[in-house]
Amino acid sequence: MRGESGAPEVSSPPRRSGPREPGRQDWSSWPHYQAAASGFRGYWYPVAFSSRITGRPTQVTLLGEKIMLVRDGGTVFALKDRCPHRGVPLSEGKRQFPGTVSCAYHGWTFGLADGELKAAITDGPASPICGKVRQPTYPAAERLGMVWVYVGEGEDAPPIDEQLPEELVDNPAVVGARIQRRTGNWRFACENGYDEGHAKYLHRTALWRVFKSMPVWNETRIERRGRWIYRVQEKQYWDADFPGLGTWNSQAWYKQRPPKDVTNIGNTGSHREVDPVIAAQEFPGFASVSMPGVLRIVYPTFIHYEFYVPIDAEHHLYVGVMANFSRGIRTLPFYVKYLGFVRWLFHGQFSAQDKWMVEITDAPPEKLYRPDDSLLKWRKLAEDTCEGRAARPKDGG
Amino acid sequence: MRGESGAPEVSSPPRRSGPREPGRQDWSSWPHYQAAASGFRGYWYPVAFSSRITGRPTQVTLLGEKIMLVRDGGTVFALKDRCPHRGVPLSEGKRQFPGTVSCAYHGWTFGLADGELKAAITDGPASPICGKVRQPTYPAAERLGMVWVYVGEGEDAPPIDEQLPEELVDNPAVVGARIQRRTGNWRFACENGYDEGHAKYLHRTALWRVFKSMPVWNETRIERRGRWIYRVQEKQYWDADFPGLGTWNSQAWYKQRPPKDVTNIGNTGSHREVDPVIAAQEFPGFASVSMPGVLRIVYPTFIHYEFYVPIDAEHHLYVGVMANFSRGIRTLPFYVKYLGFVRWLFHGQFSAQDKWMVEITDAPPEKLYRPDDSLLKWRKLAEDTCEGRAARPKDGG
Amino acid sequence: MRGESGAPEVSSPPRRSGPREPGRQDWSSWPHYQAAASGFRGYWYPVAFSSRITGRPTQVTLLGEKIMLVRDGGTVFALKDRCPHRGVPLSEGKRQFPGTVSCAYHGWTFGLADGELKAAITDGPASPICGKVRQPTYPAAERLGMVWVYVGEGEDAPPIDEQLPEELVDNPAVVGARIQRRTGNWRFACENGYDEGHAKYLHRTALWRVFKSMPVWNETRIERRGRWIYRVQEKQYWDADFPGLGTWNSQAWYKQRPPKDVTNIGNTGSHREVDPVIAAQEFPGFASVSMPGVLRIVYPTFIHYEFYVPIDAEHHLYVGVMANFSRGIRTLPFYVKYLGFVRWLFHGQFSAQDKWMVEITDAPPEKLYRPDDSLLKWRKLAEDTCEGRAARPKDGG
Repeated sequence: MRGESGAPEVSSPPRRSGPREPGRQDWSSWPHYQAAASGFRGYWYPVAFSSRITGRPTQVTLLGEKIMLVRDGGTVFALKDRCPHRGVPLSEGKRQFPGTVSCAYHGWTFGLADGELKAAITDGPASPICGKVRQPTYPAAERLGMVWVYVGEGEDAPPIDEQLPEELVDNPAVVGARIQRRTGNWRFACENGYDEGHAKYLHRTALWRVFKSMPVWNETRIERRGRWIYRVQEKQYWDADFPGLGTWNSQAWYKQRPPKDVTNIGNTGSHREVDPVIAAQEFPGFASVSMPGVLRIVYPTFIHYEFYVPIDAEHHLYVGVMANFSRGIRTLPFYVKYLGFVRWLFHGQFSAQDKWMVEITDAPPEKLYRPDDSLLKWRKLAEDTCEGRAARPKDGG
Repeated sequence: MRGESGAPEVSSPPRRSGPREPGRQDWSSWPHYQAAASGFRGYWYPVAFSSRITGRPTQVTLLGEKIMLVRDGGTVFALKDRCPHRGVPLSEGKRQFPGTVSCAYHGWTFGLADGELKAAITDGPASPICGKVRQPTYPAAERLGMVWVYVGEGEDAPPIDEQLPEELVDNPAVVGARIQRRTGNWRFACENGYDEGHAKYLHRTALWRVFKSMPVWNETRIERRGRWIYRVQEKQYWDADFPGLGTWNSQAWYKQRPPKDVTNIGNTGSHREVDPVIAAQEFPGFASVSMPGVLRIVYPTFIHYEFYVPIDAEHHLYVGVMANFSRGIRTLPFYVKYLGFVRWLFHGQFSAQDKWMVEITDAPPEKLYRPDDSLLKWRKLAEDTCEGRAARPKDGG
Repeated sequence: MRGESGAPEVSSPPRRSGPREPGRQDWSSWPHYQAAASGFRGYWYPVAFSSRITGRPTQVTLLGEKIMLVRDGGTVFALKDRCPHRGVPLSEGKRQFPGTVSCAYHGWTFGLADGELKAAITDGPASPICGKVRQPTYPAAERLGMVWVYVGEGEDAPPIDEQLPEELVDNPAVVGARIQRRTGNWRFACENGYDEGHAKYLHRTALWRVFKSMPVWNETRIERRGRWIYRVQEKQYWDADFPGLGTWNSQAWYKQRPPKDVTNIGNTGSHREVDPVIAAQEFPGFASVSMPGVLRIVYPTFIHYEFYVPIDAEHHLYVGVMANFSRGIRTLPFYVKYLGFVRWLFHGQFSAQDKWMVEITDAPPEKLYRPDDSLLKWRKLAEDTCEGRAARPKDGG
């Protein structure tokens, strides 16, 4: 039930016969998760706003792999960004013929759709190497105003819609988004996002919460439903008296009073009618997470998503998306709210507090406490789902 | 008498039966000194001016360890600067309750005096982890307007006054000091400070010496007394004629004439009455050094100290202190002299020449010459005193 | 005929019984070339303009070795730039006596011609170490307005004139030159210079070629004569129609029409009378290369040379030299042309395209194509000539 490393059994609350020093934990209990410093293969990842990918080749790095993106005839194509001839990035090149990209150095010309070497310009039309070299390609798609790339392992890519949050596939939505390259491993970003404890202390000073009280601590359980695990709030404590230290809360005269009942739509109490699309989902908890690192925070009138996209072991892309399910003229207030408010306070200053922590988190070793049950359940979800999918950064070949 | 490494026996002058190529030296003759790239444990080190340590937590690095310093109720406390929960520096946090510091991430709250986990705010007052985690602490003290921290190895810290230069403990003094973070290993800094040869050549252009002749070379012996080893000047040569090259000296019409007698208070001859406190010490030489890297240079009316504080293997803190033993109104000229003169010429431009050399020294290998006897004796002092005390930078745990 | 690494046999065109995937190549077929990341020993290298080497010591890095250059009595001397005493660079020092340099730290004074330790100033005239230490020296010479240094391996240096391009030794020439430190391995720079294919595609946009058409591809063979291998152009194709893609050429209404005959003086057709000195050389091809990385491009009225000088494994010195064999008043137009035109377009923007590629080339692995025969022949030349000469960066001693 317990490995020699002293890591706790994560599927049930630990029961001990007596008090004991909390164990120093490494991550060897989750070997695949531990190996996934550069992310998990076999998933679609958002990498850029659609408007940024044009007819001029661009390089992105995803799971440690350099990928050239270019738009041709309205469609986005993705190829491995290293010419096999001499290792020069294809993203330094140009399109010399429709449907192709030519390496800047010697004019090796690859088909965008299939990666086939169609011509080596400087060896003439009869170059014997043509048709004998095929450049690896990546499936690419566009959703939510962004380009998504699939990094797999030989197998066919599953349809991207099977991986997106279900409510975004089934319902028209208006979205506001922010993409930011950040320092720190993607797992720290995802663990921070789903972490039960930090919101109430780290974010106590966020302007986003300036008019809302926050609980001091909660009783919570984690519930799995389909691909997602949910944080279900069972009880919320808005005040606390710490023995020998004193009282502590995040209330103030200018903040809303705490709600009487526990809520699981939003974490400070629902004061509004819940949007019918959101209500129909019957989310059991306001915070949920799914592979390969997608956070969903449900508010009464919108849903906030965070995608933690592995660039390499030291960097990730933070992709924050806010979605609203209004239609027609009723989408206007959402745009006003997003551009005038949410973008700056939530995708801005609030999220910058998370960025700060992700940059300086340094684990393992670590000592976990009761609220970290959320974090342990996420690791278990990743571990169970992703056996063998940890990205192995390829050599230059 | 001689190890296989070819390093000379350092306690007596080498006697050889015939001429021989000077050996190329590594440092394996002084294994503990060689291992002490990040310093020796078991000592008090000055780390910051007292005025810089306030109620807001600050990080310093000492012997490769990150330490949080904070002042509470007038007293300075030092804790290991890594929250055991998720590795975030405690110096990013704040004091939420008197006598404690709370981690910025989840509000883990540690007692400053004992390091005990008093509360995990986001797990409520009954958090089972409280009292089960103890954060390592460091003894801290204040002397000479600076905060000192003891880095040990489990044992109790000795009283700091047993380590300070004796005359500073027993006599009231006025001091002027400079603290500067510098690149280069602390051993190069200390060896440079005590080095017999460099002062006469490297510092020949220092403004501090602009009106004073310097000897070309000296005959010197090293004498140990208590914790200190002294450079005793037996003979000074103010001119030299190098065969085949020509004459060389550092005299000039605008410089004082060299003294007739050898002096061991100051190194250019004593032209003043010696301060009674200094005279009472009966220092056998003007330059002395003691563990863990403290240099003392004795002048007629003041004493200059340099503390070489290991930050890590590539950096050290230069702490220059000038002390005067006058009292009352007679301290005024010292302040005037320090602020108007010493600070800029001695702790400034003169010391910058040493900084330059410490940055570019690159040994071993090295070939030592006769004046390096001072350096060898210092290494032997360190080696004999410090068996087993070399700092071992700890893992993140 | 074929190593297990799959690298092609380079001395004859590969003949295969059937089609086959081009092999992924490493460099193990050329083991000495592969080992020569920091260059080949046993050659003279240009390191600086003569005017830059004065009586003040200067440091250069060549084949990974730090070398002090200084001029004394009109002659340039080169010594290993590390004082054996404590590892301080001698280039930080000054000349205290004629014909010597003194280390800045303790005044160890070395003879420039023989490297002998003549004095250790701070140990007085009778210092026993004098005459027992000899600092390594390097042969140095001046040619073409530049300082050249020989890096060898114990043996005597061959006369520098045996290594310079023969026509520069035998004929007076006027030269214009550019020296630039560049990122990237010297072998990528040399391979780029001699590469048959890239000029026609990469440089199609160079202003240097704005009025000249370029071929799309050539038929070429490599011919060795003496120390040099030449690219002999057998047939040039000025237009091409790539199946399934379309036509491609680098012609335009404002460019000169392609010549009717193949030319081997210049690569776009010779429109001028060839200079008699150049004609007398009877160069079989317009591009040739020799050890240790010297490129020669022959035009009707001048010759352009590139010397790729290894600084270390990641950097090289680009030394571009343009030579003209006119005499007297007829040299004036060359100077005007060089300063007003060649320097900016050829040694400037054109060469910057090569610099760009050398920085981003990343091989092995690589897949070579037909025009890379030039590159393979260069590697074979280096391999056959330089067995055992790969530079081994020395330890600090």
